[in-house]
Amino acid sequence: MPRSLNIAVIPGDGIGKEVVAQGLKVLTSVLPQDVKLETTEYDLGAQRWHRTGETLPDAELEALKGHDAILLGAIGDPSVPSGVLERGLLLKLRFAFDHYVNLRPSKLFPNTSTPLAGRPEIDFVVVREGTEGPYTGNGGSLRTGTPAEVATEVSLNTAYGVERVVRDAYERANARPRKKLTLVHKNNVLVYAGHLWKNIFDRVGQEYPEVTTDYLHVDAATIFFVTQPERFDVIVTDNLFGDILTDLAAAVTGGIGLAASGNINPTGAFPSMFEPVHGSAPDIAGTGKADPTATILSVALLLRHLGFDAEAARIEEAASADLAERDGSFRTTDEIGDALAVRVAD
Amino acid sequence: MPRSLNIAVIPGDGIGKEVVAQGLKVLTSVLPQDVKLETTEYDLGAQRWHRTGETLPDAELEALKGHDAILLGAIGDPSVPSGVLERGLLLKLRFAFDHYVNLRPSKLFPNTSTPLAGRPEIDFVVVREGTEGPYTGNGGSLRTGTPAEVATEVSLNTAYGVERVVRDAYERANARPRKKLTLVHKNNVLVYAGHLWKNIFDRVGQEYPEVTTDYLHVDAATIFFVTQPERFDVIVTDNLFGDILTDLAAAVTGGIGLAASGNINPTGAFPSMFEPVHGSAPDIAGTGKADPTATILSVALLLRHLGFDAEAARIEEAASADLAERDGSFRTTDEIGDALAVRVAD
Ligand SMILES: CC(C)[C@H](C(=O)O)[C@@H](O)C(=O)O
Ligand SMILES: CC(C)[C@H](C(=O)O)[C@@H](O)C(=O)O
Repeated sequence: MPRSLNIAVIPGDGIGKEVVAQGLKVLTSVLPQDVKLETTEYDLGAQRWHRTGETLPDAELEALKGHDAILLGAIGDPSVPSGVLERGLLLKLRFAFDHYVNLRPSKLFPNTSTPLAGRPEIDFVVVREGTEGPYTGNGGSLRTGTPAEVATEVSLNTAYGVERVVRDAYERANARPRKKLTLVHKNNVLVYAGHLWKNIFDRVGQEYPEVTTDYLHVDAATIFFVTQPERFDVIVTDNLFGDILTDLAAAVTGGIGLAASGNINPTGAFPSMFEPVHGSAPDIAGTGKADPTATILSVALLLRHLGFDAEAARIEEAASADLAERDGSFRTTDEIGDALAVRVAD
Repeated sequence: MPRSLNIAVIPGDGIGKEVVAQGLKVLTSVLPQDVKLETTEYDLGAQRWHRTGETLPDAELEALKGHDAILLGAIGDPSVPSGVLERGLLLKLRFAFDHYVNLRPSKLFPNTSTPLAGRPEIDFVVVREGTEGPYTGNGGSLRTGTPAEVATEVSLNTAYGVERVVRDAYERANARPRKKLTLVHKNNVLVYAGHLWKNIFDRVGQEYPEVTTDYLHVDAATIFFVTQPERFDVIVTDNLFGDILTDLAAAVTGGIGLAASGNINPTGAFPSMFEPVHGSAPDIAGTGKADPTATILSVALLLRHLGFDAEAARIEEAASADLAERDGSFRTTDEIGDALAVRVAD
């Protein structure tokens, strides 16, 4: 276990600031006294953009590299044109720091509500590729705004990029009791990318004889997410399919207020970044209605990534216990954060 | 109402043959005596491919053009490499006949089971673009099979292609009581295609002042499909997002056994094609377990498209009544077809 922790904090927009405050509260509370915690806040997001036109200046990008990890709240505001902050800040970070494993666990905790009848057992993790696919920004528009406009989006997929994330997913599946890995793609239509994924998935699988494998088209996968989510253990998939599937997974496991994620660079070459799956929710910003649990669970992922396994587990147990005791009465963002900070300190 | 009907039938693979037989049974039963029905079966699919290596020869494509509409069962078999029949037959038909409106209604009929707790009211229709987006087959692979492989998939979007389907969706929304149209895309990441869609959506919307509009990212849309499906009336979206959303929609409205679809060329330049959303389900082929309702409801869409409104409505009412009276006991594909044929004849 490291003796110090140097975290970059990007609260971002809307409820981002509120939930990040709770994440830091719980982080402070869970860490052993003798671990030195340093945090540096970075002012990035909609306000900064309005003020200076900057999304992520080189100096900040450089400075961020010096941290052990990044905790991010949420990015985005209706006052900023769609895509500016997503591409210029959030995705820029994921790409610049080569976050090729976008890790998104989904678990239906006891007592949390799900839109699914029958409360199936849900406990899977999606390993979403984070640096390729349709997210590369490769594309363009010709004769923009005219009746003759043509707009393209290019999904880029490399053996290099696919193999490393597939390998990571096999490792994770192999370390779990059920040892099952499902590849999700659409290889009957996206034949070039699909065959690349499927071939690498099959080849790497030979090195993991204990892992049971499975392939599903993305459309079929959404069906099983609602009819048979218990069939999933680890899922590996491309950037866009992973985006879609993990929101659906969050919805069936108690909502986006509980879904944590890690943008991980497993090599350690750059800091990994942890964030709730939800967005900045400007409609409830400032009302105290945001559930900080997703951010707090993202802090657990951060801690595990940095070798604080026991502390990560304490947070997860605390969140689970807190959820189990919820009785439906309203608690503010702050109150939930306080409750979890107390629990993890025990 | 036309006095004759000249239908091309492509039973295809697996349960395709079985469900199409029921669709034709109901079609024969519902049509007025004096309407002359002619059907021509086309032997296309996995068996044909194994026998001759052909997916859709020019002669057949040419012959298909002579029909008023096409009824298709299902295409695909595990013995055929993924993509061969999809690209070479199913998508080839959709593209060759310019089926730019892929119409997929979703309705939770009374008494049908849904994985969603609380049985929300669901009655919406997805207008999926059918001839562009990531489905164009535009892409490739370089250094295939080597560690240096790069595979691309290009999503192609044109103002021409987007405007015509958006316009069709506004027309449909305008004709429904709730008059609400939701655009689903991912314009914060796929900015080129996303902005093209959004701009055209907004501009065409000015011609439909009575239609309420809404925009959702595809990931958020999947959340609402399970938490708040009653919010949707008409959805317009791109080819790939539509593929994913309509399988999810089918799952929450009683399963893929009930989901109908039409691949429509609204100009009439080429025959439109009607098919269940489900696949060939080789695992249950020949067992009599396939529910032909999706195909029979696709026949209703076919009839409405050709001006047989009363007959289409009779089929939909019959399916709804049949579903309402189901008591969970097993009925074969044939028995369900018989029951519906009797109902529509009344
Ligand atoms: C905000 C957006 C760019 C982002 C994504 O699409 O990855 C978000 O939806 C997510 O899942 O983290
Ligand atoms: C079989 C496949 C090519 C097809 C599609 O992706 O469109 C199917 O999933 C559908 O929805 O009709």
